[in-house]
Amino acid sequence: MHSIYQYQGFLSEYLQAQYETKEPRNLYEPIRYILDLGGKRIRPVLTLMSAEIFDAPYQKALPAALAVEVFHNFSLVHDDIMDDAPLRRGKATVHEKWNINTGILSGDAMLILAYQYFEQYEPVIFRDLAKLFSKTALEVCEGQQWDVDFEERNDVTIPEYLMMIQYKTAVLVAAAMKMGAIIAETTEENANLVYDFGLNLGLAFQLQDDFLDAFGDPETFGKQVGGDIIENKKTYLYLKAVAFSKEEEAKELRYLFSVQPENSTDKIETVKALFNSSGAATATQEAIQDFTFEAFQTLDKMNISADKKAMLKSFGENLMGRKV
Amino acid sequence: MHSIYQYQGFLSEYLQAQYETKEPRNLYEPIRYILDLGGKRIRPVLTLMSAEIFDAPYQKALPAALAVEVFHNFSLVHDDIMDDAPLRRGKATVHEKWNINTGILSGDAMLILAYQYFEQYEPVIFRDLAKLFSKTALEVCEGQQWDVDFEERNDVTIPEYLMMIQYKTAVLVAAAMKMGAIIAETTEENANLVYDFGLNLGLAFQLQDDFLDAFGDPETFGKQVGGDIIENKKTYLYLKAVAFSKEEEAKELRYLFSVQPENSTDKIETVKALFNSSGAATATQEAIQDFTFEAFQTLDKMNISADKKAMLKSFGENLMGRKV
Repeated sequence: MHSIYQYQGFLSEYLQAQYETKEPRNLYEPIRYILDLGGKRIRPVLTLMSAEIFDAPYQKALPAALAVEVFHNFSLVHDDIMDDAPLRRGKATVHEKWNINTGILSGDAMLILAYQYFEQYEPVIFRDLAKLFSKTALEVCEGQQWDVDFEERNDVTIPEYLMMIQYKTAVLVAAAMKMGAIIAETTEENANLVYDFGLNLGLAFQLQDDFLDAFGDPETFGKQVGGDIIENKKTYLYLKAVAFSKEEEAKELRYLFSVQPENSTDKIETVKALFNSSGAATATQEAIQDFTFEAFQTLDKMNISADKKAMLKSFGENLMGRKV
Repeated sequence: MHSIYQYQGFLSEYLQAQYETKEPRNLYEPIRYILDLGGKRIRPVLTLMSAEIFDAPYQKALPAALAVEVFHNFSLVHDDIMDDAPLRRGKATVHEKWNINTGILSGDAMLILAYQYFEQYEPVIFRDLAKLFSKTALEVCEGQQWDVDFEERNDVTIPEYLMMIQYKTAVLVAAAMKMGAIIAETTEENANLVYDFGLNLGLAFQLQDDFLDAFGDPETFGKQVGGDIIENKKTYLYLKAVAFSKEEEAKELRYLFSVQPENSTDKIETVKALFNSSGAATATQEAIQDFTFEAFQTLDKMNISADKKAMLKSFGENLMGRKV
């Protein structure tokens, strides 16, 4: 087994060799650009790690890991267009640096390129990977659509919100891990367990993201703290706060999430205070712990050595203790 | 073997069963909508026909045929956004009827759905189909990018233009036919020959499209005649006309293709007159014949019965004699 930093290194080396001087440049340069913006590469790291957990060399999992990363970046490029986001990882988004058409088309190409990485596997594994990938990719689209739909609605429930983040975020984390299992040709039971592990970890991860967006340290967070509040995103924090608040505070929250003042400092502070006083902040941290605990329960059922379980557990704990 | 009308009927029946009541509706309704707009369904018809040419029942080719049709419609939805086109087959485009975000996301889902149709085949055929499909889909993106790039350039050559339409249009016709051959498990030589047949037919088809856009009968053409001229699209007709014209006429053409008058009637008439007088119209019809002839030459080399060759030939002739 290797460390997360080592896996990140393997990936970045493997990535360097891709899309070097391909034509048309206006199609491939944005792909190179977004992939080079970096990020934590959590999903592909999980693919490599999962392969090694089930006794395959990580090298065998590199193409699938990159497929996952390229797909993830495809979804970022298209989501950034839909959200009209100017920045991604502190740099201009693709549609901002080029234009919307380039964003659409380079994104499309990335989705196809992701599938092409699976061609390096023999037919049965190829089919299993591509099948899992298609199912997952479609769920990610459905999650994004729910997210868009929910913006127009004022009656989104907590279970609906959790379903949305499951589709939009968690299934890809789960699939990334299951791909490692498929490549290692472990038992179907192990493959399904690692999927469930990833799914719960992914849910915890997204709730953590929601939490950090409001309560992260501006010095280390990387994105604008309070971004979700500014954009009136009805995250878990907001839904819980409305549910937990008395009518007066709930009314204030609903009002604050219907306006976009030019200077948002006061709004952010008021909302965060309400997130705290209502108990929503605590409830969110509890939910993160619950999903993480659920993931660890799944881990116990897996037919792998104790030190490998410990490694996955430590990865989960690190992810949940993160500040960015 | 069956007739084109029969194949269209099989497809439309098979299509009816898809995407019935899937959620989220805002993702799947636009997909249903664009697929129901109809069109000639030339590409999937070719997949069914090709399967039967190589002695497989057309039923076996239905999933792959629909993959091709769904992919083609994906590319229309995204291209219509990029071209800012309000109409498609006389009806509102997806981004016009819904919005750009829905167009992007439903298009993404269609690209994934196309891959899912291949899951109905056994692993080796699945991989061969998905591999051909990815290669083709990427080429279509590249072709679209060249098309976008060429709009900004004034020095596009005839070979560059032909390469662009090969990628943007012809490779999908070629791949649609090769998929039928793959499903029928014919020889690799036959599969490659039918690909070449489709490629040349596809080139002829696109040049015919360019020609009809200017010289089609407004009563039967379906789209606005002169649309390419209004949008200053530098098609084969235009490039040949500039190449064949004396400096004065070439200058006039270049000027006319740099302006967008509110009333375009005069512009269209003048341009069409120049397309005729320069010999570009005739040259385009000759090029259509050349590519069709090239396709028929390929046909002769194929290891199939004479009546099947005759059928493919007649299909090609019908396509080239079309008015819409």
